[in-house]
Amino acid sequence: MTETTAKPVASAEQAAVEDALVDLVVASFDNTPDVRLKQLMRSLTHHLHAFIRDVRLTEQEWAAAIDFLTAVGHISDDKRQEFVLLSDVLGASMQTIAVNNQAYRNATEATVFGPFFRDSAPEIPLGGDVAHGAAGQPCWVDGAVLDSDGNPVPNARIEVWECDEEGLYDVQYADGRLAGRARLHTDANGEYRFWCVTPVPYPIPDDGPVGRLLHSVGRSPMRAAHLHFMVTAERLRTLVTHIFIDGDPQIALGDSVFGMKESLVKKFIQQAPRTPTPDGRDLGDQPWARTRFDVVLAPGDT
Amino acid sequence: MTETTAKPVASAEQAAVEDALVDLVVASFDNTPDVRLKQLMRSLTHHLHAFIRDVRLTEQEWAAAIDFLTAVGHISDDKRQEFVLLSDVLGASMQTIAVNNQAYRNATEATVFGPFFRDSAPEIPLGGDVAHGAAGQPCWVDGAVLDSDGNPVPNARIEVWECDEEGLYDVQYADGRLAGRARLHTDANGEYRFWCVTPVPYPIPDDGPVGRLLHSVGRSPMRAAHLHFMVTAERLRTLVTHIFIDGDPQIALGDSVFGMKESLVKKFIQQAPRTPTPDGRDLGDQPWARTRFDVVLAPGDT
Repeated sequence: MTETTAKPVASAEQAAVEDALVDLVVASFDNTPDVRLKQLMRSLTHHLHAFIRDVRLTEQEWAAAIDFLTAVGHISDDKRQEFVLLSDVLGASMQTIAVNNQAYRNATEATVFGPFFRDSAPEIPLGGDVAHGAAGQPCWVDGAVLDSDGNPVPNARIEVWECDEEGLYDVQYADGRLAGRARLHTDANGEYRFWCVTPVPYPIPDDGPVGRLLHSVGRSPMRAAHLHFMVTAERLRTLVTHIFIDGDPQIALGDSVFGMKESLVKKFIQQAPRTPTPDGRDLGDQPWARTRFDVVLAPGDT
Repeated sequence: MTETTAKPVASAEQAAVEDALVDLVVASFDNTPDVRLKQLMRSLTHHLHAFIRDVRLTEQEWAAAIDFLTAVGHISDDKRQEFVLLSDVLGASMQTIAVNNQAYRNATEATVFGPFFRDSAPEIPLGGDVAHGAAGQPCWVDGAVLDSDGNPVPNARIEVWECDEEGLYDVQYADGRLAGRARLHTDANGEYRFWCVTPVPYPIPDDGPVGRLLHSVGRSPMRAAHLHFMVTAERLRTLVTHIFIDGDPQIALGDSVFGMKESLVKKFIQQAPRTPTPDGRDLGDQPWARTRFDVVLAPGDT
């Protein structure tokens, strides 16, 4: 850490009172049957109390925090997960990803999961269309899934999800239709290919308490344009990641959830109208784009 | 602190990645216009990330935390505040009280506010009945409000709230009636007196996510019997406190929200049936109790 908050002075007597309370709360977890839960609760107690004491949290600030968390809970439902957004904008999601996905040789880097994944995405064939009606510039994506020794991984499950050209995921549509998400599997050579729409920068939902927080701290809700991937294969570490677009100006401006990594920035090559498509699809007079993304999976823990 | 969690080893390269992320998130608050908010968010970032890194939080644990917080939000409404309960059982409420109510000479100690206060309590005259139909043994409480030099404080506002003999506050009643809470003011000599019901130990609401947490860590939801006070007077520090009952076995067993303090334990003297009451109230053949609580207020900040 490069910076810590200066501690306001508390007298030795006062510090002893505060220490004794921390000890009392920590000891209250002594009878936790699950050893890991005990460790989590004791550590949480230490860090939570250290925060309150370091900033000398006022009772008004405590009450504001209770109101804020309550509002975050109330706006959350099956389709909107404001606690995930909160974790994202505090970098807590990305730190959890960092802790659990340590660099392994040439393995592809992980990044944030985000709040927009749905388990119910349809299976599509290789070369199928992830967009499923989501508006945007057609984009061809292909690549291979490999292990860290360079061996192809056949039948790896690839889940892809993205927003449309307006920056909206399907879960944000009023009519509840499914679009911009699909599941597919690599072929016998570990190769995959699909159509989707070219990603665009978009704001995370900022009409709720997390948006108001970002506004009060002078931060933009914008995310750099990206395409979500989750790649799963037997005996390999599951990868949750995005790819970003080389040249997207939002990359320099900053990503509101700290998910951007240089190794995940890919060239999306713009194709003039009538440029033949890889699978012969007729796009009329539309321009389109293409990119390649080879995924390298680290060994699994099991 | 007497205990910290052993840090699992992370390589120097991994620690550098995690440090860099903390720095990036801390720097994202650089443009916060409000200096205090900037301090709070930077310190929160440090402590939150330190917790995740110390325990090497897994992605499953992160997801469980998101689900837990969402459930805490969903059960909270105008009458039930599960985030306050959560703060209470983690000792965060009591630590905030400790930070903001440092001992001042002979001033009465503060304790937790709790989730059951309502602003709408009726004003009663001196000697009036706080119970207002809440079932329980009648209890006479009197005392004086004084400043720390021993001067009486006339016209101090005293707010009192308590559960009934079943351990329920009125906000937990199905019919929404108001009971077990009132507001009164000290007389010209700083004296006050009222009837209420003798406090009983009770569990904090344990049918929600906080109750499930307490169960998983082997903790009891029981609170020691207590009577809530909030005392407000011009130019003096507002006091939020309880009084506890000398001899209540729950005091030794522990208070689920860490609110108990020795200085707040008072003798509640049991009175045989037909013992004359201080104000001539006829209680028939009921036994009753009485106690005295002199409140000493510290000087205010303004």
